[in-house]
Amino acid sequence: MKLGRFVVEGLDGPVQRICMVLPEQNRVIDLRAAEALRLQARGATREAALRYASTVFPESMSAAIALGQQFLETAAEAAEKNGADASLAMDGLKWGAACDPSVVRDGLTFTKHIRQFHERMNVTPQPALLEIPGYFKGSPWTVIGHDAEVPWPARGQRIDYELELGWVIGSRANNLTPDTALSHLFGVTIFNDFSARDLQANEFAIGMGPTKSKDFAYGIGPWITTIDEFSNLSDIKMSVRVNGETWGEGDSSEMLWTPEELIAYVSIGDHIQPGDVIGSGTMGDGSAFELGRSLNPGDVVELEVGGVGVLRNRIGQRPQESWWPEPRKPFM
Amino acid sequence: MKLGRFVVEGLDGPVQRICMVLPEQNRVIDLRAAEALRLQARGATREAALRYASTVFPESMSAAIALGQQFLETAAEAAEKNGADASLAMDGLKWGAACDPSVVRDGLTFTKHIRQFHERMNVTPQPALLEIPGYFKGSPWTVIGHDAEVPWPARGQRIDYELELGWVIGSRANNLTPDTALSHLFGVTIFNDFSARDLQANEFAIGMGPTKSKDFAYGIGPWITTIDEFSNLSDIKMSVRVNGETWGEGDSSEMLWTPEELIAYVSIGDHIQPGDVIGSGTMGDGSAFELGRSLNPGDVVELEVGGVGVLRNRIGQRPQESWWPEPRKPFM
Repeated sequence: MKLGRFVVEGLDGPVQRICMVLPEQNRVIDLRAAEALRLQARGATREAALRYASTVFPESMSAAIALGQQFLETAAEAAEKNGADASLAMDGLKWGAACDPSVVRDGLTFTKHIRQFHERMNVTPQPALLEIPGYFKGSPWTVIGHDAEVPWPARGQRIDYELELGWVIGSRANNLTPDTALSHLFGVTIFNDFSARDLQANEFAIGMGPTKSKDFAYGIGPWITTIDEFSNLSDIKMSVRVNGETWGEGDSSEMLWTPEELIAYVSIGDHIQPGDVIGSGTMGDGSAFELGRSLNPGDVVELEVGGVGVLRNRIGQRPQESWWPEPRKPFM
Repeated sequence: MKLGRFVVEGLDGPVQRICMVLPEQNRVIDLRAAEALRLQARGATREAALRYASTVFPESMSAAIALGQQFLETAAEAAEKNGADASLAMDGLKWGAACDPSVVRDGLTFTKHIRQFHERMNVTPQPALLEIPGYFKGSPWTVIGHDAEVPWPARGQRIDYELELGWVIGSRANNLTPDTALSHLFGVTIFNDFSARDLQANEFAIGMGPTKSKDFAYGIGPWITTIDEFSNLSDIKMSVRVNGETWGEGDSSEMLWTPEELIAYVSIGDHIQPGDVIGSGTMGDGSAFELGRSLNPGDVVELEVGGVGVLRNRIGQRPQESWWPEPRKPFM
């Protein structure tokens, strides 16, 4: 099943609706509307039907996934019984971010990318990369969806995309093992870890993880494909196009850490939540940095992932000069 | 005003109640109960009074702060009119975490700590520390409150506290300047950035920020003191005791970056939210690491901050051996 969110104007402003996506039919099913119709056909009043349907299909994808099997089963039933009466054409749809994760986490698991990144930087990889699965945490408040514009980061010059799989978490858990982790994987989405390469230098030197070099946009979408539709997580085709030209392609093989190892490691001492997204890290050739290139305002970046679809975002214009801290004098 | 949360057993399990804290009277006011009584005295039915009171004083401190001035004004009025009828003794109260931030962020602003940390590590500070206010992001799912036990982190050996101020955000904002940032500061709490020093080495080498060395416990509490009660944010007395013995003391002076600079910087490109907590970074002598010491299971750590109170946590026992990733073979 493919699940996403679209945005419509409500009485009090824009609202998000959870939908089942049928790309081959070029339409989506508004699941809240379909379920309300189904319930009314079974004797519910309109008010009660809407109340129930909005509980199972709220605005938040995380809140929907948090309902467990009830969410997926109700989605399937609503779509089957009343999907035709609650369909919208995909053309012209305004998409929301497929997920609203409580925490954005992003790993580093593809060996080809790690190798090429270090070659480009002309540095030796830290042995620590072989000891533990590294990952960083990003602000959940800069997540954007399909077709959304990427705000150009303040003071950034060398803007980049990163082609990644997004592992969508299905249930609350902690202290998992790789054996138990896979059952908490709800689905796969596309994750674009937009980066300002020039801002990364100071942030890397400080050693507290990325801040302004990453926390301006995390692209998540266009939708989630549930995990039952994948037979092999190391054989997913991936490619990236900039302004229609292919800049990189490959697949999800050559993983230093498997998805189940990454998820299990993230869950140690910490708690994963329904709807959380854990980025796989960049695929080899999945960043412009590896090619010695970078993005310009107006560029259109399309990430394509087999079994999911295409996540497309346009890079915004450079903002006006804003406040930036004055450097301090040495104190040691 | 001092605002915290306590935990009581409800029909469906434990629930959090927001309270006004009166430490000098050794009691708290259950604000939801006080407000419901006040409304009933003004003609509301019991059901409507509870509905309104639970909207203004929900379980989440972030959701309450998000109501803006309505939250503080209603709290003051409910406490004045019906506080006496909704009081509980502080003795025996089970505290919740004062805040439930959407993101934990933690800075590095006290020069004495930075100096002593680098001296102890025998390394030269990175010039980048003078260029931008460094901060890391932590999982909001490991926040604990006053009197809660600190889970001993898997594989950790050298466990430490960090004595910090927690800047509590009052409203949603982005792209602030230091001039506009202070008006978004709701109050001050105590922030204990518990750390596993031995786990930091690999994580620092990877350069993606702390993960397992920090994401096991962030102590926040015992309550929030609203910002109007502070006349000078650089003159707050701070101290730490371990098992009753003072291990460090000082104040909030000698800041490399002011709170308003840190908040403004965090807000660049990103979005701060009501109830978010931004740690000040550790005060000089505010970690055991600077003293060449570390904590043991059962140790009781008390952080005292002038104008707030004492945040006390006991270190838990070492857990049983759990899963940990197998090191990988070099691939370059």
